[in-house]
Amino acid sequence: MGPGPVNAHPRVLRAMSAQLLGQFDPEFTTYMNETMALYRQVFQTRNRWTFLIDGTARAAIEAALVSLLEPGDAIVVLSAGRFGLLLREIAERCGAEVTMVEGEWGGIVTPAAVEAAVARVRPRVVAAVFGDTSTTIAQPMHEIGRICARHGAMLYLDATATLAGMDVPVDEWGADVVTAGLQKCLGGPSGSAPVTISDQAAARIASRRHVEQGIASGADRPAGGRRIASNYFDLAMIMDYWSERRLNHHTEATTMLYGARECARLVMEEGLVDRIARHRLAGEAMRAGLQAMGLTLFGDQAYAMHNVTGIEIPDGVDGERVRLRMRVQFGIEIGSSFGPLAGRIWRIGTMGYNCRQDTVMATLAALEAVLRGEGVRVPSGEAVDAALARYASA
Amino acid sequence: MGPGPVNAHPRVLRAMSAQLLGQFDPEFTTYMNETMALYRQVFQTRNRWTFLIDGTARAAIEAALVSLLEPGDAIVVLSAGRFGLLLREIAERCGAEVTMVEGEWGGIVTPAAVEAAVARVRPRVVAAVFGDTSTTIAQPMHEIGRICARHGAMLYLDATATLAGMDVPVDEWGADVVTAGLQKCLGGPSGSAPVTISDQAAARIASRRHVEQGIASGADRPAGGRRIASNYFDLAMIMDYWSERRLNHHTEATTMLYGARECARLVMEEGLVDRIARHRLAGEAMRAGLQAMGLTLFGDQAYAMHNVTGIEIPDGVDGERVRLRMRVQFGIEIGSSFGPLAGRIWRIGTMGYNCRQDTVMATLAALEAVLRGEGVRVPSGEAVDAALARYASA
Repeated sequence: MGPGPVNAHPRVLRAMSAQLLGQFDPEFTTYMNETMALYRQVFQTRNRWTFLIDGTARAAIEAALVSLLEPGDAIVVLSAGRFGLLLREIAERCGAEVTMVEGEWGGIVTPAAVEAAVARVRPRVVAAVFGDTSTTIAQPMHEIGRICARHGAMLYLDATATLAGMDVPVDEWGADVVTAGLQKCLGGPSGSAPVTISDQAAARIASRRHVEQGIASGADRPAGGRRIASNYFDLAMIMDYWSERRLNHHTEATTMLYGARECARLVMEEGLVDRIARHRLAGEAMRAGLQAMGLTLFGDQAYAMHNVTGIEIPDGVDGERVRLRMRVQFGIEIGSSFGPLAGRIWRIGTMGYNCRQDTVMATLAALEAVLRGEGVRVPSGEAVDAALARYASA
Repeated sequence: MGPGPVNAHPRVLRAMSAQLLGQFDPEFTTYMNETMALYRQVFQTRNRWTFLIDGTARAAIEAALVSLLEPGDAIVVLSAGRFGLLLREIAERCGAEVTMVEGEWGGIVTPAAVEAAVARVRPRVVAAVFGDTSTTIAQPMHEIGRICARHGAMLYLDATATLAGMDVPVDEWGADVVTAGLQKCLGGPSGSAPVTISDQAAARIASRRHVEQGIASGADRPAGGRRIASNYFDLAMIMDYWSERRLNHHTEATTMLYGARECARLVMEEGLVDRIARHRLAGEAMRAGLQAMGLTLFGDQAYAMHNVTGIEIPDGVDGERVRLRMRVQFGIEIGSSFGPLAGRIWRIGTMGYNCRQDTVMATLAALEAVLRGEGVRVPSGEAVDAALARYASA
């Protein structure tokens, strides 16, 4: 019940125990195409280029930024948490000129501040995190997309922690590249990262296409744009690999693809709307229970993520000892956080396969007992009752 | 029976169906430490820094080169096949000044040519492929290691296609960074890439350490060296994550780690010496059978890899139709190759779980039947008999 990775859905694990297929076996390339079609639905997009990056969520962030940005390009980065800072860090390593628009950790970045920066800097890319797990707060994206459209900037969005748990309507938001990971609301293991790319972004990437010498044919002259600084994260070559041409790049991670495909199948069987409602309800029940226990939620609750909740660690309580008791005595993992929030908040996730009424109830009951064991005065049974009431009224 | 990916060992697939653990759960960090210890044995090294990169084999190559090289650094690259060209391509994208020392595809690069280039260029790094699957030829490495030692260059080695199937004595060769993948002789799926790093290379990498702002503490001042151009492939940060400090970087790919660990456990249970002998014997039996069928082996057989064999496609034979018949009628995949060898050779693998007497026999029998079906005059039964004889004399 931490902020991810969380338990995987058993069907995902079973899918991943299937025997391997060759990367050009027609059965396997059919799975690749099915995976593309499934993730178009999960991302709510018509983007042709919707596929997997073979690495963790952070790999897809880097693939997006290194393929869009070249040294000297301007980028505006929204940040109100650790993963906003990560976007800055990756963009800097791409050699981009980074302008930060920052908000308090626990709050959001105001659209007015973003528009002012974009109007001043005229960036090629605006980058944001939708749902920064470090603070448990989700940045509203509608207005950011409109700002990008008004100023001709491309919008990159990190939806690692929210895809398939909160509403991420990629086309409606006008996002050009959106990336995710399996280990949060998708209910799989980390190691494969879904990405979707708009036609506009794909054209930008194609303008930098340089096929490897060892596999290029005569028709594969380098495009005019500057070669992408990474081979592994060169989205132009990865698109060639996922195209009908199947021009070899890496060797697709077979087992991870089986897992990513099954995650998306489970999402679409449940239905995106129902799945998001399930995550919203579990988050509300968890928060109702935590407040009934007398704890203080962290951050601006108007923008709270559905699927992970921040709680201030009460004064005088050893947060790490509470986490240890939760894990050892109850088999339940909860998280702390990073940087200025390390030791200041706990983070409790309700996502993917772990987003269930029984896990919410067990976590609240366990936390109440552990806090009492640590000498905190906690009302008996009220947390569970409040969460039950929230479920009953759903 | 292609050049990889090949079928995974069933025990690896079972290990990968285990439920996930949190990345900082003591049970999981114990698995991480066990994995480090196991791969030290597989790499025949005492290197402390021996761990996994979360991506395919190509990800580990890029992690090694981007962490060792900064723009303007000189590198000497040995190449006699597609994967030598890949080293050049990746080094160029790192901004390095690349000097190629090339050999014919099907042959090796001579040590004398390497020494001449190294003496002239004084590179920071010499990079080579031990076992280039595109040509099925293995570059002898002892002398290359001695050349690097004489001239103070670091040696990077791509052992993707050979580790745990041929002898890769990392310390004996004096290799500084060696990388691999699971999908060849290790008998697992692609998507996790073992790497080992000498103390000398680790010191070079540490001199470029820049911890992310979102997680750095006061003690984490940037080192003096130039920041590594990639975040995901920053080996200094990945080493922090695999160290006792467990400073968060990516979220370790849980399921792939289970798989990588099981692959190495299987290697050590069988014993490296026995495993390499198994691969040598299967390769010899396969080649004996192919020659008995009247086919011509490709490349300088003095340097043939154990675990993948190149065969010239006979004049007038449609290589792709043979591959199709093999797959559809016999359920056996064999490979073609890339660049100048596309359509000129087939490649038959005998590696990992597929390196067995029964698979060698079935492949030879099937190929004989398919070739006869395609109108090639093939002696009846002699291929299987030759392979049986090779096994009988083992």
